[in-house]
Amino acid sequence: MPDSPAPLANVFTIGVRDFPAQRDFYRSLGWPQVVDDDDYAAFELRGAVLGLFPLRNLAADGNTEPAPIGDGVGFTIGIMTDSAEDVDRLVDRFRKAGARITKEPEDAEFFEGRSAYLADPEGNYFEVAWSTSDNAIVAAARRAAGQ
Amino acid sequence: MPDSPAPLANVFTIGVRDFPAQRDFYRSLGWPQVVDDDDYAAFELRGAVLGLFPLRNLAADGNTEPAPIGDGVGFTIGIMTDSAEDVDRLVDRFRKAGARITKEPEDAEFFEGRSAYLADPEGNYFEVAWSTSDNAIVAAARRAAGQ
Repeated sequence: MPDSPAPLANVFTIGVRDFPAQRDFYRSLGWPQVVDDDDYAAFELRGAVLGLFPLRNLAADGNTEPAPIGDGVGFTIGIMTDSAEDVDRLVDRFRKAGARITKEPEDAEFFEGRSAYLADPEGNYFEVAWSTSDNAIVAAARRAAGQ
Repeated sequence: MPDSPAPLANVFTIGVRDFPAQRDFYRSLGWPQVVDDDDYAAFELRGAVLGLFPLRNLAADGNTEPAPIGDGVGFTIGIMTDSAEDVDRLVDRFRKAGARITKEPEDAEFFEGRSAYLADPEGNYFEVAWSTSDNAIVAAARRAAGQ
Protein backbone atom coordinates (compact mmCIF):
# COMPACT_ATOMS: atom_id res chain seq x y z
CA MET A 1 0.00 0.00 0.00
CA PRO A 2 2.53 2.65 -1.07
CA ASP A 3 -0.31 5.08 -1.72
CA SER A 4 -1.90 4.62 1.68
CA PRO A 5 -1.83 7.65 3.94
CA ALA A 6 0.79 7.61 6.63
CA PRO A 7 -0.52 6.00 9.82
CA LEU A 8 -1.73 7.95 12.83
CA ALA A 9 1.28 6.93 14.93
CA ASN A 10 1.29 9.34 17.82
CA VAL A 11 0.51 7.51 21.06
CA PHE A 12 3.81 7.06 22.91
CA THR A 13 3.35 4.75 25.85
CA ILE A 14 6.11 4.46 28.43
CA GLY A 15 6.28 1.40 30.64
CA VAL A 16 6.69 2.70 34.18
CA ARG A 17 7.84 1.00 37.36
CA ASP A 18 6.35 3.44 39.90
CA PHE A 19 3.07 4.43 38.28
CA PRO A 20 1.83 7.03 40.81
CA ALA A 21 5.23 8.72 40.97
CA GLN A 22 5.56 8.94 37.21
CA ARG A 23 1.98 10.15 36.83
CA ASP A 24 2.62 12.86 39.39
CA PHE A 25 5.84 13.87 37.67
CA TYR A 26 4.06 14.51 34.37
CA ARG A 27 1.15 16.19 36.12
CA SER A 28 3.58 18.55 37.81
CA LEU A 29 4.78 19.70 34.39
CA GLY A 30 1.28 21.06 33.87
CA TRP A 31 0.55 18.71 30.98
CA PRO A 32 -3.18 18.15 30.42
CA GLN A 33 -4.20 14.67 31.55
CA VAL A 34 -6.97 13.14 29.46
CA VAL A 35 -7.07 9.61 30.91
CA ASP A 36 -6.74 8.95 34.63
CA ASP A 37 -7.26 5.26 35.39
CA ASP A 38 -5.78 3.20 38.20
CA ASP A 39 -3.13 1.80 35.89
CA TYR A 40 -3.16 4.01 32.84
CA ALA A 41 -2.60 7.73 32.46
CA ALA A 42 -2.49 9.74 29.26
CA PHE A 43 -1.46 13.32 28.61
CA GLU A 44 -2.53 15.09 25.44
CA LEU A 45 0.23 17.17 23.94
CA ARG A 46 0.48 18.85 20.56
CA GLY A 47 1.06 16.19 17.94
CA ALA A 48 1.19 13.26 20.29
CA VAL A 49 -0.34 11.60 23.32
CA LEU A 50 1.97 10.42 26.10
CA GLY A 51 0.69 7.34 27.92
CA LEU A 52 1.97 5.77 31.15
CA PHE A 53 1.31 2.10 31.75
CA PRO A 54 2.90 -0.10 34.41
CA LEU A 55 5.80 -1.90 32.77
CA ARG A 56 4.61 -5.35 33.83
CA ASN A 57 1.17 -4.64 32.34
CA LEU A 58 2.70 -3.34 29.13
CA ALA A 59 4.86 -6.44 28.79
CA ALA A 60 1.91 -8.73 29.53
CA ASP A 61 -0.34 -6.87 27.08
CA GLY A 62 2.35 -7.14 24.40
CA ASN A 63 3.01 -10.81 25.11
CA THR A 64 6.66 -10.13 25.79
CA GLU A 65 9.08 -9.36 28.63
CA PRO A 66 9.93 -6.03 30.23
CA ALA A 67 13.02 -4.39 28.79
CA PRO A 68 16.13 -4.49 30.97
CA ILE A 69 16.45 -1.64 33.42
CA GLY A 70 19.52 0.50 33.09
CA ASP A 71 20.82 3.99 32.72
CA GLY A 72 21.33 5.47 29.32
CA VAL A 73 19.28 6.48 26.35
CA GLY A 74 17.54 4.25 23.84
CA PHE A 75 15.00 6.70 22.50
CA THR A 76 14.01 10.32 22.95
CA ILE A 77 10.74 12.17 22.83
CA GLY A 78 11.59 15.40 21.07
CA ILE A 79 9.87 18.60 22.09
CA MET A 80 10.13 21.48 19.64
CA THR A 81 9.75 24.88 21.27
CA ASP A 82 8.72 28.14 19.66
CA SER A 83 11.86 30.04 20.66
CA ALA A 84 15.40 29.50 21.90
CA GLU A 85 14.42 31.00 25.26
CA ASP A 86 11.61 28.47 25.60
CA VAL A 87 14.19 25.67 25.59
CA ASP A 88 15.71 27.09 28.76
CA ARG A 89 12.33 27.77 30.32
CA LEU A 90 11.01 24.29 29.66
CA VAL A 91 14.20 22.65 30.88
CA ASP A 92 13.93 24.65 34.10
CA ARG A 93 10.39 23.45 34.50
CA PHE A 94 11.51 19.84 34.03
CA ARG A 95 14.31 20.41 36.53
CA LYS A 96 11.91 21.70 39.17
CA ALA A 97 9.69 18.68 38.58
CA GLY A 98 12.63 16.39 39.36
CA ALA A 99 14.08 15.59 35.94
CA ARG A 100 17.77 14.85 35.54
CA ILE A 101 19.31 17.23 33.02
CA THR A 102 22.07 15.42 31.15
CA LYS A 103 22.82 18.25 28.75
CA GLU A 104 22.03 21.81 29.68
CA PRO A 105 20.64 24.00 26.91
CA GLU A 106 23.30 24.92 24.40
CA ASP A 107 23.67 25.72 20.74
CA ALA A 108 22.91 22.50 18.92
CA GLU A 109 25.62 20.49 17.24
CA PHE A 110 23.61 18.91 14.44
CA PHE A 111 21.41 21.84 13.38
CA GLU A 112 21.09 25.57 13.79
CA GLY A 113 19.26 26.10 17.03
CA ARG A 114 19.30 25.24 20.72
CA SER A 115 19.01 21.85 22.38
CA ALA A 116 19.01 20.12 25.75
CA TYR A 117 18.55 16.56 26.97
CA LEU A 118 16.98 15.33 30.19
CA ALA A 119 15.59 12.16 31.72
CA ASP A 120 12.43 11.67 33.75
CA PRO A 121 12.77 9.99 37.18
CA GLU A 122 12.81 6.53 35.58
CA GLY A 123 15.32 7.39 32.88
CA ASN A 124 13.08 8.12 29.90
CA TYR A 125 14.77 10.75 27.80
CA PHE A 126 13.51 13.94 26.22
CA GLU A 127 15.26 16.29 23.88
CA VAL A 128 14.04 19.87 24.13
CA ALA A 129 15.00 21.76 21.01
CA TRP A 130 14.37 24.88 19.06
CA SER A 131 15.29 25.54 15.47
CA THR A 132 14.17 27.82 12.69
CA SER A 133 10.93 27.05 10.92
CA ASP A 134 12.78 26.06 7.74
CA ASN A 135 14.44 23.20 9.62
CA ALA A 136 13.12 19.98 8.06
CA ILE A 137 12.26 18.37 11.39
CA VAL A 138 10.51 21.45 12.74
CA ALA A 139 8.49 21.73 9.55
CA ALA A 140 7.59 18.03 9.59
CA ALA A 141 6.65 18.11 13.29
CA ARG A 142 4.31 21.05 12.72
CA ARG A 143 2.73 19.50 9.66
CA ALA A 144 2.28 16.20 11.49
CA ALA A 145 0.51 18.06 14.29
CA GLY A 146 -1.74 19.80 11.80
CA GLN A 147 -0.20 23.18 12.57
CA MET B 1 3.16 27.91 33.59
CA PRO B 2 -0.05 25.95 34.07
CA ASP B 3 -1.73 28.08 31.42
CA SER B 4 0.97 27.47 28.83
CA PRO B 5 -0.11 25.50 25.80
CA ALA B 6 0.92 21.86 25.79
CA PRO B 7 4.30 21.42 24.13
CA LEU B 8 4.77 20.21 20.57
CA ALA B 9 6.18 16.86 21.69
CA ASN B 10 5.96 14.67 18.63
CA VAL B 11 9.45 13.86 17.37
CA PHE B 12 10.15 10.33 18.46
CA THR B 13 13.78 9.40 17.87
CA ILE B 14 14.96 5.81 18.15
CA GLY B 15 18.61 5.07 18.75
CA VAL B 16 19.57 2.42 16.19
CA ARG B 17 22.53 0.07 15.99
CA ASP B 18 22.37 -0.75 12.27
CA PHE B 19 21.34 2.54 10.74
CA PRO B 20 21.02 1.48 7.06
CA ALA B 21 19.07 -1.66 7.95
CA GLN B 22 16.65 0.20 10.20
CA ARG B 23 16.19 2.99 7.64
CA ASP B 24 15.42 0.40 4.96
CA PHE B 25 12.97 -1.37 7.25
CA TYR B 26 10.92 1.81 7.75
CA ARG B 27 11.20 2.73 4.07
CA SER B 28 9.84 -0.67 3.16
CA LEU B 29 6.69 0.10 5.16
CA GLY B 30 6.04 2.87 2.66
CA TRP B 31 6.37 5.61 5.25
CA PRO B 32 7.25 8.99 3.73
CA GLN B 33 10.86 9.91 4.49
CA VAL B 34 11.42 13.63 4.95
CA VAL B 35 15.06 13.64 6.11
CA ASP B 36 17.68 11.38 4.53
CA ASP B 37 21.13 12.16 5.90
CA ASP B 38 24.07 9.83 6.33
CA ASP B 39 23.30 9.38 10.01
CA TYR B 40 19.78 10.67 10.48
CA ALA B 41 16.52 9.63 8.87
CA ALA B 42 13.05 10.95 9.62
CA PHE B 43 9.65 9.73 8.54
CA GLU B 44 6.64 12.02 8.73
CA LEU B 45 3.56 10.25 10.00
CA ARG B 46 0.24 11.63 11.12
CA GLY B 47 0.68 13.27 14.49
CA ALA B 48 4.33 12.46 14.90
CA VAL B 49 7.71 12.28 13.24
CA LEU B 50 9.78 9.11 13.65
CA GLY B 51 13.52 9.75 13.64
CA LEU B 52 16.35 7.23 13.42
CA PHE B 53 19.74 8.20 14.81
CA PRO B 54 22.68 5.88 15.47
CA LEU B 55 22.56 4.94 19.13
CA ARG B 56 26.13 6.02 19.83
CA ASN B 57 25.42 9.44 18.27
CA LEU B 58 22.22 9.79 20.25
CA ALA B 59 24.01 8.97 23.50
CA ALA B 60 26.85 11.36 22.68
CA ASP B 61 24.44 14.14 21.72
CA GLY B 62 22.54 13.63 24.97
CA ASN B 63 25.71 13.50 27.05
CA THR B 64 24.80 10.08 28.39
CA GLU B 65 25.34 6.38 27.71
CA PRO B 66 23.49 4.05 25.38
CA ALA B 67 20.71 2.09 27.05
CA PRO B 68 21.43 -1.59 27.65
CA ILE B 69 20.54 -3.89 24.77
CA GLY B 70 18.03 -6.60 25.52
CA ASP B 71 14.80 -8.15 24.49
CA GLY B 72 11.55 -6.92 25.90
CA VAL B 73 9.44 -3.82 25.83
CA GLY B 74 10.10 -0.51 27.56
CA PHE B 75 7.91 1.72 25.44
CA THR B 76 5.54 1.46 22.52
CA ILE B 77 4.70 3.70 19.62
CA GLY B 78 0.96 3.34 19.28
CA ILE B 79 -0.61 3.42 15.84
CA MET B 80 -4.36 3.98 15.74
CA THR B 81 -6.01 2.60 12.63
CA ASP B 82 -9.31 3.64 11.08
CA SER B 83 -10.88 0.19 11.21
CA ALA B 84 -10.47 -3.21 12.87
CA GLU B 85 -9.50 -4.69 9.51
CA ASP B 86 -6.72 -2.13 9.14
CA VAL B 87 -5.06 -3.55 12.26
CA ASP B 88 -4.65 -6.88 10.50
CA ARG B 89 -3.58 -5.26 7.25
CA LEU B 90 -0.95 -3.08 8.88
CA VAL B 91 0.40 -5.95 10.96
CA ASP B 92 0.75 -8.02 7.80
CA ARG B 93 2.65 -5.19 6.18
CA PHE B 94 4.99 -5.02 9.21
CA ARG B 95 5.41 -8.79 9.06
CA LYS B 96 6.42 -8.70 5.41
CA ALA B 97 8.92 -5.94 6.20
CA GLY B 98 10.57 -8.21 8.77
CA ALA B 99 8.93 -7.22 12.05
CA ARG B 100 8.52 -9.73 14.84
CA ILE B 101 4.85 -10.01 15.81
CA THR B 102 4.62 -10.73 19.54
CA LYS B 103 0.84 -10.54 19.72
CA GLU B 104 -1.26 -11.25 16.68
CA PRO B 105 -4.32 -9.03 16.20
CA GLU B 106 -7.04 -9.86 18.67
CA ASP B 107 -9.86 -8.24 20.51
CA ALA B 108 -8.22 -5.88 22.99
CA GLU B 109 -8.16 -6.59 26.69
CA PHE B 110 -8.13 -3.05 28.03
CA PHE B 111 -10.59 -1.35 25.68
CA GLU B 112 -13.24 -2.15 23.10
CA GLY B 113 -11.39 -2.71 19.87
CA ARG B 114 -8.59 -4.69 18.28
CA SER B 115 -4.91 -4.67 19.10
CA ALA B 116 -1.58 -6.24 18.16
CA TYR B 117 2.03 -5.80 19.23
CA LEU B 118 5.18 -6.15 17.19
CA ALA B 119 8.85 -5.23 17.32
CA ASP B 120 11.07 -3.81 14.60
CA PRO B 121 14.31 -5.70 13.79
CA GLU B 122 16.11 -4.05 16.73
CA GLY B 123 13.33 -4.65 19.25
CA ASN B 124 11.49 -1.33 19.24
CA TYR B 125 7.86 -2.02 19.92
CA PHE B 126 4.69 -0.82 18.25
CA GLU B 127 1.12 -1.37 19.26
CA VAL B 128 -1.30 -1.32 16.35
CA ALA B 129 -4.80 -0.70 17.62
CA TRP B 130 -8.26 0.24 16.56
CA SER B 131 -11.06 1.44 18.80
CA THR B 132 -14.23 3.44 18.43
CA SER B 133 -13.96 7.19 18.03
CA ASP B 134 -15.43 7.77 21.49
CA ASN B 135 -12.43 6.00 23.02
CA ALA B 136 -10.52 8.64 25.00
CA ILE B 137 -7.14 7.74 23.52
CA VAL B 138 -8.42 7.68 19.95
CA ALA B 139 -10.09 11.04 20.46
CA ALA B 140 -6.97 12.54 22.05
CA ALA B 141 -4.68 11.12 19.33
CA ARG B 142 -6.84 12.64 16.60
CA ARG B 143 -7.07 16.00 18.33
CA ALA B 144 -3.32 16.03 18.91
CA ALA B 145 -2.78 15.40 15.21
CA GLY B 146 -5.15 18.23 14.33
CA GLN B 147 -7.68 15.82 12.84
